[in-house]
Amino acid sequence: MFGVIAMESIVWIAIILVLFAGIIVLNVKFKKNIAFAWRVVISTLIGLAAGIIYQVMFSGYSADTSALITSQVTQVTTLIGDGFIALLRMLVVPLVFIAILNVIVNQKEQANLGKMTIRTVSLFVITVAVAALIGIGLAMAFNLGSGMTLPVGTEGWAGKEYKGIVDTIIGLLPRNPIAAMAEGNVIAVVIFAAFIGIATNKVDKKYPELIAPVKTLITAGFKIMTRLTGMIIQLIPYGVFALMFNLAATQGFSTFQEIATYFVVMLIGLVLLFAVHMIILISRGINPVKFVLNAAPALLVAFTSSSSFGTLPVTIETLEDRMGVSTGVANFSASLGSTMGMNACAGLFPAVLAVMIANMSGVAIDLPFIFLMLVVIVIGSFGIAGIPGTASIAATVVLGGLGLPFAPVALIWPIDPIIDMGRTMVNVNGAMVISTVVDKSMGLMDQEKFNEPNKQKDNEVGAEA
Amino acid sequence: MFGVIAMESIVWIAIILVLFAGIIVLNVKFKKNIAFAWRVVISTLIGLAAGIIYQVMFSGYSADTSALITSQVTQVTTLIGDGFIALLRMLVVPLVFIAILNVIVNQKEQANLGKMTIRTVSLFVITVAVAALIGIGLAMAFNLGSGMTLPVGTEGWAGKEYKGIVDTIIGLLPRNPIAAMAEGNVIAVVIFAAFIGIATNKVDKKYPELIAPVKTLITAGFKIMTRLTGMIIQLIPYGVFALMFNLAATQGFSTFQEIATYFVVMLIGLVLLFAVHMIILISRGINPVKFVLNAAPALLVAFTSSSSFGTLPVTIETLEDRMGVSTGVANFSASLGSTMGMNACAGLFPAVLAVMIANMSGVAIDLPFIFLMLVVIVIGSFGIAGIPGTASIAATVVLGGLGLPFAPVALIWPIDPIIDMGRTMVNVNGAMVISTVVDKSMGLMDQEKFNEPNKQKDNEVGAEA
Amino acid sequence: MFGVIAMESIVWIAIILVLFAGIIVLNVKFKKNIAFAWRVVISTLIGLAAGIIYQVMFSGYSADTSALITSQVTQVTTLIGDGFIALLRMLVVPLVFIAILNVIVNQKEQANLGKMTIRTVSLFVITVAVAALIGIGLAMAFNLGSGMTLPVGTEGWAGKEYKGIVDTIIGLLPRNPIAAMAEGNVIAVVIFAAFIGIATNKVDKKYPELIAPVKTLITAGFKIMTRLTGMIIQLIPYGVFALMFNLAATQGFSTFQEIATYFVVMLIGLVLLFAVHMIILISRGINPVKFVLNAAPALLVAFTSSSSFGTLPVTIETLEDRMGVSTGVANFSASLGSTMGMNACAGLFPAVLAVMIANMSGVAIDLPFIFLMLVVIVIGSFGIAGIPGTASIAATVVLGGLGLPFAPVALIWPIDPIIDMGRTMVNVNGAMVISTVVDKSMGLMDQEKFNEPNKQKDNEVGAEA
Repeated sequence: MFGVIAMESIVWIAIILVLFAGIIVLNVKFKKNIAFAWRVVISTLIGLAAGIIYQVMFSGYSADTSALITSQVTQVTTLIGDGFIALLRMLVVPLVFIAILNVIVNQKEQANLGKMTIRTVSLFVITVAVAALIGIGLAMAFNLGSGMTLPVGTEGWAGKEYKGIVDTIIGLLPRNPIAAMAEGNVIAVVIFAAFIGIATNKVDKKYPELIAPVKTLITAGFKIMTRLTGMIIQLIPYGVFALMFNLAATQGFSTFQEIATYFVVMLIGLVLLFAVHMIILISRGINPVKFVLNAAPALLVAFTSSSSFGTLPVTIETLEDRMGVSTGVANFSASLGSTMGMNACAGLFPAVLAVMIANMSGVAIDLPFIFLMLVVIVIGSFGIAGIPGTASIAATVVLGGLGLPFAPVALIWPIDPIIDMGRTMVNVNGAMVISTVVDKSMGLMDQEKFNEPNKQKDNEVGAEA
Repeated sequence: MFGVIAMESIVWIAIILVLFAGIIVLNVKFKKNIAFAWRVVISTLIGLAAGIIYQVMFSGYSADTSALITSQVTQVTTLIGDGFIALLRMLVVPLVFIAILNVIVNQKEQANLGKMTIRTVSLFVITVAVAALIGIGLAMAFNLGSGMTLPVGTEGWAGKEYKGIVDTIIGLLPRNPIAAMAEGNVIAVVIFAAFIGIATNKVDKKYPELIAPVKTLITAGFKIMTRLTGMIIQLIPYGVFALMFNLAATQGFSTFQEIATYFVVMLIGLVLLFAVHMIILISRGINPVKFVLNAAPALLVAFTSSSSFGTLPVTIETLEDRMGVSTGVANFSASLGSTMGMNACAGLFPAVLAVMIANMSGVAIDLPFIFLMLVVIVIGSFGIAGIPGTASIAATVVLGGLGLPFAPVALIWPIDPIIDMGRTMVNVNGAMVISTVVDKSMGLMDQEKFNEPNKQKDNEVGAEA
Repeated sequence: MFGVIAMESIVWIAIILVLFAGIIVLNVKFKKNIAFAWRVVISTLIGLAAGIIYQVMFSGYSADTSALITSQVTQVTTLIGDGFIALLRMLVVPLVFIAILNVIVNQKEQANLGKMTIRTVSLFVITVAVAALIGIGLAMAFNLGSGMTLPVGTEGWAGKEYKGIVDTIIGLLPRNPIAAMAEGNVIAVVIFAAFIGIATNKVDKKYPELIAPVKTLITAGFKIMTRLTGMIIQLIPYGVFALMFNLAATQGFSTFQEIATYFVVMLIGLVLLFAVHMIILISRGINPVKFVLNAAPALLVAFTSSSSFGTLPVTIETLEDRMGVSTGVANFSASLGSTMGMNACAGLFPAVLAVMIANMSGVAIDLPFIFLMLVVIVIGSFGIAGIPGTASIAATVVLGGLGLPFAPVALIWPIDPIIDMGRTMVNVNGAMVISTVVDKSMGLMDQEKFNEPNKQKDNEVGAEA
């Protein structure tokens, strides 16, 4: 840590600091001229370009030297990038708790609570099934897995521990609400907040003068957390720049010929899934281009951070302030979608994997097997809600449920961090699409806010922040 | 998990769902006609009957087949039963914290705080000593342990780790109140809430206008938590049905000839201890039949859940709303009694065990040894307060304190889950008896509420909920 | 635990209880006649004297007998002493959270926030550097380490795990505020409270009527926590008596000839560092004698408890009520100083250690090496902030950064508990000196309160408590 610092490291740290200063200028001086989403996109591209130039420059160096320099240079970008993600994560538990409480106590939406939950969950079920079908179809079309051989020494991968659907569902209940908060169990926090909110409303009917100050405090708490979220969201350009540089500078695209097909299949799958999301929007009369422009900051945070959980505050803020989705639906659906019914992680990914490993194992993929896969994937996508490491646990559940071996997963692990970026982005996109569609179907959506130019929205936010 | 589902499983799952629907009808349609306690009793009996029929039906099947079917069928009942317990556990920490705070800040009972604590703790000491004497007497009368031999391969049982009474007492202090809440350390939560409450009252004397809104919020919080408890208590019939079915369907009463005497001794001991509780009530002029009718829901939750901690919200609600015990005493005594001075777990059980193992080990049971046992058990019953797994830790402390070996405990472990049900019920009964007696002795008890017909109490609760 | 109790144990437990009763009389009857600080000093001395007499008396006994008696006797003093520390620790998280929130929301000091942070951190950097220079100079003057040999069997000590400065800094962020509170991560709690406070002030500008009750509650919460701290601070004389007895009765000063020089060097170093603190005070026009008299209770708690974290509530209360330091600076600087920039643990100690091990390893200590040591120590003192076990982690970071072996640390471990007492006291003293100096430099300090006779301050506190 305190050893020799290479000359090249100092130069590159200086370059990064200059670029960083440039991004500060971009976001402070040009605040009013360039919409927030575009500033996020520009910062991402600067990070990407710098990372690629960095990797090209050091490609001639010895592995040791380049590893040393990279570890020194990325200290700076890791500090910025991981610090940004840490601040986002900080918001999740208090924001979700107070937002759900506020929705139930102050927004008189409790009548719609059941309707909202049913519509959201149904849409998650349907989209996961569609994602699984896309995965199965693509993997079969490419005959993925045939001809692949398991490298020596990878027999050990035995799946993650999974306790069964009943234990998982019970684990989602807020057995101890303080422990659930400390563990970041989002669904337990949602359920506990909903319980408290419903009980508060019942007491309110009998003792309104006692509950009035409670309501005021909840409103104030919600405004405080929303404002704090707004403050940290202003940091997105800095965060995505640093995360993108890190990824571009350190990800080697080395020797993955054998899994190149897998990579291509996943990529096409993610694109198709994204297209399905757009079709859903169009079918509901929502302009997909405008939607993506509004969603851009959240999508880029999801892409660079690879964390649906960490992106949650940005997702909620984007839905409320840029999509015109009502507070209730934005908070409920996005919170649920941060761990449940994930289109790409729990739908597409395990489907592709299952077909690949079935082909490798010589299991015939006939109609009954496809149907079984579909059932296992859809049930699994809810059964694993709230367990960290969604994608790998989804793989475990699906492969285990189909009686397929786990070891071949080791093959694709080296490139999984790259795939995970796209997967997370499509997950978050799915959650936002479903929130918007549910909100519109309930007649709550603010179309004007959705259509308003983004520059104008930023100014409103900017004026507040 | 997603494998073949046996035909019999589907039939039985259907039967359970039909029974469950019946219990819904019972609790919704007959709400006004049948008192809550009787609905709980009826639901328990339906669960018991279904479980016994289930076990009889599959007794002819091969072990593998019946294990498969049982694991599929009980998924449904486990989900309902464990889900119900999870919701009860959710209430414990916030309910205890806000209730103790409310008692001290709003009920002007702080003058009685010391008196209440001393009386409660004294009664726990006395009843634990009585429980230990019953256990010692019975085990000696039956000459328990002589002729028993330790099965091969059970030498390993070495007692649970126990850090000594000083560390345990210090562990009860809320070293970090947030951590204590997250760990569900009830006594630490009580102590922290009491400290905050006392400090609030001191500030109140100087700045009453500043503390007035704090008091309003505490009152509101207490009403909200009480209402939430009331909502979840309405679910007791569903919970006990599922838990009872599970227990009756899965508990095999296989090959326990050798420990049959132990089983009988424990059973008689629990009955005698229960009788002692009733005698205490009579001596204080409290009608024991009415007491048991009032206590029935809490006792059945304790019996089916085997968890004093989980039953705590029901215990508190029963004391306040059905026994007419004052809020302060109900919350203080029941919280203390949920981990400290447990009559059956820390008094009767280790006494029976110690005599049995002394007999097995050829240790003479003379008067000094009996006296030593008594001292060790009574001190131990407080020294282990707040440590999870009370019964096994009590066994460790008592056997360790007497220098007896741990291995023979392995003998009785197979039937311990059944014994634990009765033990928990008698523990909770003891805590409720002591609460009621302390409350009456302080002139706080609401005799009219105690004597009111239960149906009427339910309606009041029902009207609120 | 429940075995034979030696006669001598009973006698000594009786003696301790009599002394304890004497301390109660001292603190209750002579409250108005003897200043609090003197009562703390007297109680410490009684504990010290009793401990020394105890150790002398049992020096003739066999090791087994004296160990048995000591383990029985110290149960009582451990209960009192560790119970006292547990109560102090209980205060840290809620006190720091509400105090920082209160400072930002109610005291209009947010304008000074940046200035305060910069001055505090700069002073910590400077004093750590001075401490490191003192350590290096002294260890070189005594030629510490030359002639020392590593005892057989101590090669194993391999340093504590340390994840690097970037991960440590990110670990200080409140990634999950509830988890940070449960873990007692002071700096994360400070940062989270500051964020919430700043967001509250921003919302306040737009919705003052909504935030008004929030402010009232924060003020009330701060007053409640301050009062609770005052209540527990009244227990200091009992705590220090018990802790001091325990230390004096159990610490054997056995066979440390070889490390006697190390002991002497550390002692002189601590005295010099203390002198530097006094010089800083004089240079700022603050009376050092009066300062030490005011600081005495906090210094003795630090000395006897060996915990900067546990002493924090006393440190804050001392700064506010006895030094006249403003609430904002007292809470900010003392909280930061409880884990960051520790003069003795992270400055003096690793410097002495590094020179000693360099000498043992035959590394030449020339000017570049001294400069490198200085840089590593100063950066390290911030990089390790918030990690428990500060001194040993500081040793790990510094030795690792200099490429020196860890094993020789095993040599000094046996006497480290004694050294740690002095180290903690000087750390806490440093934090208080820096707080006072920063406060004065910002023109906030209440000189009259600083100079007021301590007896009078006690009476004010006494009247409140």
